[in-house]
Amino acid sequence: MTFLPSIIPLIQAPMAGAQGPELAIAVCRAGGLGSLPAAMLTPDHLREQIGAVRGETNAPYNVNFFCHAEPAPNPETEARWRNRLAPYYAEAGIDPSGVAAAPARAPFGEAMCAVVEEMRPAVVSFHFGLPPAQLLSRVKTAGALILASATTVAEARWLEQHGVHAVIAQGREAGGHRGMFLSDDIEGQPGLISLLPQVRDAVRLPVVAAGGISDGRGIAAAFALGADAVQIGTAYLRTPQATISPIHRAALASARDDATRLTNVFTGRPARGLINRFVSEVGPMARDAPQFPLAAGAAAPLRTAGEKRGSGDFSPLWAGESAALAREESAEAMTRRLWADGQAVAAGLSSRWQD
Amino acid sequence: MTFLPSIIPLIQAPMAGAQGPELAIAVCRAGGLGSLPAAMLTPDHLREQIGAVRGETNAPYNVNFFCHAEPAPNPETEARWRNRLAPYYAEAGIDPSGVAAAPARAPFGEAMCAVVEEMRPAVVSFHFGLPPAQLLSRVKTAGALILASATTVAEARWLEQHGVHAVIAQGREAGGHRGMFLSDDIEGQPGLISLLPQVRDAVRLPVVAAGGISDGRGIAAAFALGADAVQIGTAYLRTPQATISPIHRAALASARDDATRLTNVFTGRPARGLINRFVSEVGPMARDAPQFPLAAGAAAPLRTAGEKRGSGDFSPLWAGESAALAREESAEAMTRRLWADGQAVAAGLSSRWQD
Repeated sequence: MTFLPSIIPLIQAPMAGAQGPELAIAVCRAGGLGSLPAAMLTPDHLREQIGAVRGETNAPYNVNFFCHAEPAPNPETEARWRNRLAPYYAEAGIDPSGVAAAPARAPFGEAMCAVVEEMRPAVVSFHFGLPPAQLLSRVKTAGALILASATTVAEARWLEQHGVHAVIAQGREAGGHRGMFLSDDIEGQPGLISLLPQVRDAVRLPVVAAGGISDGRGIAAAFALGADAVQIGTAYLRTPQATISPIHRAALASARDDATRLTNVFTGRPARGLINRFVSEVGPMARDAPQFPLAAGAAAPLRTAGEKRGSGDFSPLWAGESAALAREESAEAMTRRLWADGQAVAAGLSSRWQD
Repeated sequence: MTFLPSIIPLIQAPMAGAQGPELAIAVCRAGGLGSLPAAMLTPDHLREQIGAVRGETNAPYNVNFFCHAEPAPNPETEARWRNRLAPYYAEAGIDPSGVAAAPARAPFGEAMCAVVEEMRPAVVSFHFGLPPAQLLSRVKTAGALILASATTVAEARWLEQHGVHAVIAQGREAGGHRGMFLSDDIEGQPGLISLLPQVRDAVRLPVVAAGGISDGRGIAAAFALGADAVQIGTAYLRTPQATISPIHRAALASARDDATRLTNVFTGRPARGLINRFVSEVGPMARDAPQFPLAAGAAAPLRTAGEKRGSGDFSPLWAGESAALAREESAEAMTRRLWADGQAVAAGLSSRWQD
């Protein structure tokens, strides 16, 4: 039925900073593929989180890693960026000299590879390309099914040539970071209804549809377009299992179709989130933002200060374009409902033209 | 079966400057809804083209009009724009003082309304909003089913409140001009997989899916997302019935998923087309372009000069993000095949989970 080891071909999108093992466990229990985002974890924390999943379910799960090139710190660029943000620091009473530039996101490396070899997750997914060949080969040897994101047909072809087992076609609608790695031109990245069938035609591998899927209609549409599985993120942010702030939750509850933007102001890489003051005043795309993930250091204290006074003006409010289609629900119930709804839409579709 | 007067719920998108009655006739013969774009026609030419359709088929057809606010000429802006293009005029040996600023596209007005009242098309569709209430009321009295484009949920709601009979949800993937009229922020316009179900939930009217649909998979996906009909444009540019240049045809034949951009350099309004020299060097979005349609005058002689030497460097190569999914085929055969393929995909979808 599915190339995935899970019972139903539905992957809970790994969302770094927005979830822990609770979400993955709930999705696994419903038969979906739960995911652990490792990008902001230490190897020890990842080991712990995998242990937590393992303690609750024997179902297969996914661990996700980032594969960005680690940038050399550039004190001049970073100083210029902090200078650009100076009025906001002043407003919030933050001493800019105390703002740390340390990246909170490390690319997949030796230590994380050792965790994979030890814990042997059924699935490993990568964002921003792939790790060096030698590390990728070790992940394969550990028995993992390897997935990676493509934002264009060219990236899908590249991933196939470099040995992944399945391609995640990430439509432009998706919330969070764009997975692009061959080009940084976000304007050329198609919407899912265009990207998915073109990726399907270009590669022989299974294709996972991601971006803009928040209900049964989106699931049925993705399979109509040629998907072998779907990956859903934003909808799961509305579950109690997500670890996002009440501010982010409230923003999602009133999200509109036209209220997201691709912005690099939070981390240095384009990611889709709801518009707030920081996005509209400094971005959405700031030419002078330091390279990912160095920009994150400068934004972090503004977020902290804002949230202390109950404001999301400086918080990354990650969301896809279909946020408004999601509803508050537990992750296990949501997974079962989404899948049942998707099947019902598919069944209704064929009966539509038979009368 | 369908709210449309055509046999199958498939509208051939009206494409001003790229087609005449031949395309509409072929689509009508296959049971689809053929369309005549009137935006670049005089009332007399429109009357002639409707006559040509009427001479070949009794099937219902659609006439499409633009509803932009006519801009006051701004000699300063236009001079600045011609100045920006001066190096290109020099390169092509064009005398900039002879470049005309006259708009080639007039909004729907009194004279066109009289043609509608005389010829009584079954369907009239509007782009860039709606005409003044008094004109709209006359079109209704003439018996036309009225459709108009929405690029956001807010625009769909506005159209419903202002009395259209059905909303065309134009996904960001669509080729040609964005139909937006409430906001000029193109970054907030969702992809079809997000826009369509949200429009479906927001209005009680029938919804037509447009943008990124070039094959049976896209058609089935659109109906899964809640569409009552689909509108297809780019695919029809590859039929012999389209009147585009050989240069445009060749560009479409080698189109890639990531090769289109939203650009305002040809007309002053954002429209999706394949990247060429003019788009990449002057755009894609130029802040200083004169208002639609005034920018068109300055670009026209560059296009003419370019095409004379066999170059599409300055030609608008309108295309949606799914151009690569289309194939060369006659419009009548394409219409029948697309619809049959869409039904086959829908039927296959429900059987997928029944084994």
